Amino acid sequence: MIRIHLDVELDYVVDPQGADFVFNIHAAHTPCQWVSNEQLSINQPIDARVHTDPTSGNRYMRMRAQGGPLQVRYSAMVDITHHQADPNTIGEVPVHLLPPETMGYIYPSRYCQSDRLLRLAYNEFGQLPQGYMRVLAIRDWVTRHVAFTSNTSNGNTSAADTLIEQVGVCRDFAHLMIALCRACNIPARFATGTDYGADPALGPPDFHAYVEAYLGDRWYIFDPSGTAIPMAFLRFGTGRDAADVAFATIFGSVQTVAPLIHATAVEDASLGIVLPHHNQMALSTDQGISLHR
Amino acid sequence: MIRIHLDVELDYVVDPQGADFVFNIHAAHTPCQWVSNEQLSINQPIDARVHTDPTSGNRYMRMRAQGGPLQVRYSAMVDITHHQADPNTIGEVPVHLLPPETMGYIYPSRYCQSDRLLRLAYNEFGQLPQGYMRVLAIRDWVTRHVAFTSNTSNGNTSAADTLIEQVGVCRDFAHLMIALCRACNIPARFATGTDYGADPALGPPDFHAYVEAYLGDRWYIFDPSGTAIPMAFLRFGTGRDAADVAFATIFGSVQTVAPLIHATAVEDASLGIVLPHHNQMALSTDQGISLHR
Amino acid sequence: MIRIHLDVELDYVVDPQGADFVFNIHAAHTPCQWVSNEQLSINQPIDARVHTDPTSGNRYMRMRAQGGPLQVRYSAMVDITHHQADPNTIGEVPVHLLPPETMGYIYPSRYCQSDRLLRLAYNEFGQLPQGYMRVLAIRDWVTRHVAFTSNTSNGNTSAADTLIEQVGVCRDFAHLMIALCRACNIPARFATGTDYGADPALGPPDFHAYVEAYLGDRWYIFDPSGTAIPMAFLRFGTGRDAADVAFATIFGSVQTVAPLIHATAVEDASLGIVLPHHNQMALSTDQGISLHR
Amino acid sequence: MIRIHLDVELDYVVDPQGADFVFNIHAAHTPCQWVSNEQLSINQPIDARVHTDPTSGNRYMRMRAQGGPLQVRYSAMVDITHHQADPNTIGEVPVHLLPPETMGYIYPSRYCQSDRLLRLAYNEFGQLPQGYMRVLAIRDWVTRHVAFTSNTSNGNTSAADTLIEQVGVCRDFAHLMIALCRACNIPARFATGTDYGADPALGPPDFHAYVEAYLGDRWYIFDPSGTAIPMAFLRFGTGRDAADVAFATIFGSVQTVAPLIHATAVEDASLGIVLPHHNQMALSTDQGISLHR
Repeated sequence: MIRIHLDVELDYVVDPQGADFVFNIHAAHTPCQWVSNEQLSINQPIDARVHTDPTSGNRYMRMRAQGGPLQVRYSAMVDITHHQADPNTIGEVPVHLLPPETMGYIYPSRYCQSDRLLRLAYNEFGQLPQGYMRVLAIRDWVTRHVAFTSNTSNGNTSAADTLIEQVGVCRDFAHLMIALCRACNIPARFATGTDYGADPALGPPDFHAYVEAYLGDRWYIFDPSGTAIPMAFLRFGTGRDAADVAFATIFGSVQTVAPLIHATAVEDASLGIVLPHHNQMALSTDQGISLHR
Repeated sequence: MIRIHLDVELDYVVDPQGADFVFNIHAAHTPCQWVSNEQLSINQPIDARVHTDPTSGNRYMRMRAQGGPLQVRYSAMVDITHHQADPNTIGEVPVHLLPPETMGYIYPSRYCQSDRLLRLAYNEFGQLPQGYMRVLAIRDWVTRHVAFTSNTSNGNTSAADTLIEQVGVCRDFAHLMIALCRACNIPARFATGTDYGADPALGPPDFHAYVEAYLGDRWYIFDPSGTAIPMAFLRFGTGRDAADVAFATIFGSVQTVAPLIHATAVEDASLGIVLPHHNQMALSTDQGISLHR
Repeated sequence: MIRIHLDVELDYVVDPQGADFVFNIHAAHTPCQWVSNEQLSINQPIDARVHTDPTSGNRYMRMRAQGGPLQVRYSAMVDITHHQADPNTIGEVPVHLLPPETMGYIYPSRYCQSDRLLRLAYNEFGQLPQGYMRVLAIRDWVTRHVAFTSNTSNGNTSAADTLIEQVGVCRDFAHLMIALCRACNIPARFATGTDYGADPALGPPDFHAYVEAYLGDRWYIFDPSGTAIPMAFLRFGTGRDAADVAFATIFGSVQTVAPLIHATAVEDASLGIVLPHHNQMALSTDQGISLHR
Repeated sequence: MIRIHLDVELDYVVDPQGADFVFNIHAAHTPCQWVSNEQLSINQPIDARVHTDPTSGNRYMRMRAQGGPLQVRYSAMVDITHHQADPNTIGEVPVHLLPPETMGYIYPSRYCQSDRLLRLAYNEFGQLPQGYMRVLAIRDWVTRHVAFTSNTSNGNTSAADTLIEQVGVCRDFAHLMIALCRACNIPARFATGTDYGADPALGPPDFHAYVEAYLGDRWYIFDPSGTAIPMAFLRFGTGRDAADVAFATIFGSVQTVAPLIHATAVEDASLGIVLPHHNQMALSTDQGISLHR
């Protein structure tokens, strides 16, 4: 088990007419992720409603902020129990046998134009044996072809752009890997967490984007930008791509400050709590979905 | 009430290695749409599984076809009971008050890059009073700016392309209108039906794409290409855009023939069944969603 | 006549392996633009070769810089004698009668995808009487639809992007106006100068991009971003779009500092030298091209 | 020497209001390409003016056609004397030493967004020894990654699209190769000819697009789609990309019929005339440009 203490500080200055916000900064409620000691504070006397998506477990918090400073503080203790499996034993699932709730992740989305990558995916990965190792080959291809460089992409950058320009940040790596998986008929989704374990040279601790691919009977974690430690990926949300699980989606005119993130791991042998570390196992924080029928 | 007799004939020749298909040709099961007398036939001795999406009511049929001819025939009788409302009484819902299940339709998607159209939407529609009539203004703007011309777009064409090139088919009109609605913070989704009532000069009866926008407490119907009679839109599916509800999504190498569609309306005054006709009311085939809280 | 004193200061730090540069910072030699008192200094002991393009009069300076700081200083006195004409007397030229040397400016280019805008251009401008006033209508359309905002576009931004996102800087306004002119079969080209007269609130003096359209028998000046005084546009270069006349094109790895530009106008009634000012005449710094044959 | 007998038949039906045409179907006048026995016929009593571009040797024919059928017939005998060189002896030219007239071909253009491919080009080709063999490696990379399939691209398809979708026709192969060459700082241009020697299974004889790259002291021929025999490439035109040298650019509303092309090679040992054949030499139909200064 992994235990992460999380603190998130978000600061904005809202224009006088106010603005609507959708936040996805609550640790998701999933069978593998236990959230406790949650504290939320907002400096404005406004109503914030939190809704848990029944399918994904994502918790979205919405509010209408007034003009002026908006400060949102969230902290929690998150315990993650991973499903670990031998990569060599995990197969792909044919399209006609996929669980229905995974089908939405096989179609193209805003930032993952998998429909345009069918030939490329076939040429690069079509001859590989199907299974976890093929997805790992896709991840490695993305890691190898794209350079991690801050400020080289923006909110409009999609997988097609990253394929051409071969540069980006974690979000761009994730979009390209997702698009390639879908082009191979493998459901893949965008997941958000923190970049625990990242090289401080890349900047202060930050939100992180990674990939979950559906293999065998559950969603497995992949980190194509390779900048963080997957075992520490506490999950904020999963969606089709970044459009679904931005940590903050803002409707209105607002000035923003870079978020402050603190994620600290705890070790406690007596409780079976270990520090996040790289390992060679296939990791999932998903409980598994039984096959259709 | 409207009653439509529907026949769909789909023909393919599948390459020897076989192919997976996802069809969305079953009339959706919704509280306003009653489907009876369904008949489905497939010429291959294969297993077809139909799954009803619990949220949308879409029915997806999946199968793995063998090499050779694949013939799929579907027929049904569909009764549609519309919710009709006075357009002037229907308002928009602020983002922070939207029902959670509508939120996915406010974000950009593969073919509806609403995130790029914020300024254009604000410039064109930002000063209009909010409500159904604003969405009608968006519909009219799309109808006015885009010319309906067959074979001018393809599977890669998105709202951004249609905005630039100002030409397309029903699907392209729908994508552009959806993107503009979302850019105005109005949930909008892609819906598929048949083009009952279309001018025969546009070609034989066909599938049709239209728009549903969330207003007041339910999803209302809009037909930006203006080629069909909205009252006759029996719904196959709704989704974020065409990627979600293609009548057929094919995974493999297949030759296709144009689909044959027959949709016939029945009139029976004794049962309150009228023929589909254009009217000025706001139409919905949606039961309504109570506001969050 | 207008007289401008120009100073340009460019500073770079070149990576150890060196880099090639193409500069277009010399005032062009044209019959209407007289350049004197030129001074050029480069801090590195390297060979800089200046080539004057025989057709455009652009002067390109190329050099291979060594690793380390590179400082380029250029100053000149530039006298501009405008051709001024009554806007109402200037017509368009049919494609088959255009001078051959203008034909390259009627085709699409990297940042001006006029081929995609044919319908939009026809819908918006197709009914207007042909001539200078139609081009003015195109300019006004661009000015009205696009907002000038720094840091909203980048080196990949093209006319199609600006049309969608409706925001940009002078270069983006110019690209969109050029694309629309070409879509109306009017030759249009990208021109570079300084933003003499710009509101200091927009930032320090800078390079500027504007448009020249071929009408009557010569190229007339248009300033779609409307941020500067056209009469003061000393011309560095003209080309198909920004790709041709960047003030600096760099081949290699280099750190750059924002350029320093000083453009000062002189008034001397005894010599007929007036200060640049806005007026309603059609302005050209082009000598005129006789019609083919 | 190669001798080709060429016949071109173009047929259109022009809408009643007439249309302007620019044709580039005359064999270019170049020092290496001798054109004789030219015959041109147009079925309409209209004025066609032919202009030879002084730099490229391209001959553009312009006319304003009346409503109704337009038939253009062109035939010629073209003798081509190639410059042939040992591939291993031909080097690249550093940017600062390139002849000025080649500089326009190092910048991005409408269909060749080399500016977006810098990292990809560096990653794939940056470590190869500079010279003809590196350009051959680029050609082979394009040939290997793109599949030749009719009707998979259109007039909007660019190198970036072809890179993503990995399919296209000769024009798309050429655009991608050009973009990659330019991204390596090698001037490259689009050239048009006929597909003499193409497999009849690809369809009837047609126009062809290929690439010329500037190496050593001249432009060398490359055929990335590999569908024809380069030695038989009689040149219609060269330009930045397809926008410059379409065989027909039409301004107006016109119905078109597929062009008919006949290119027949002659053998006559007594005159030193050989049949076009594949060989391993570097071929150029360019006279060579002396280095600047």
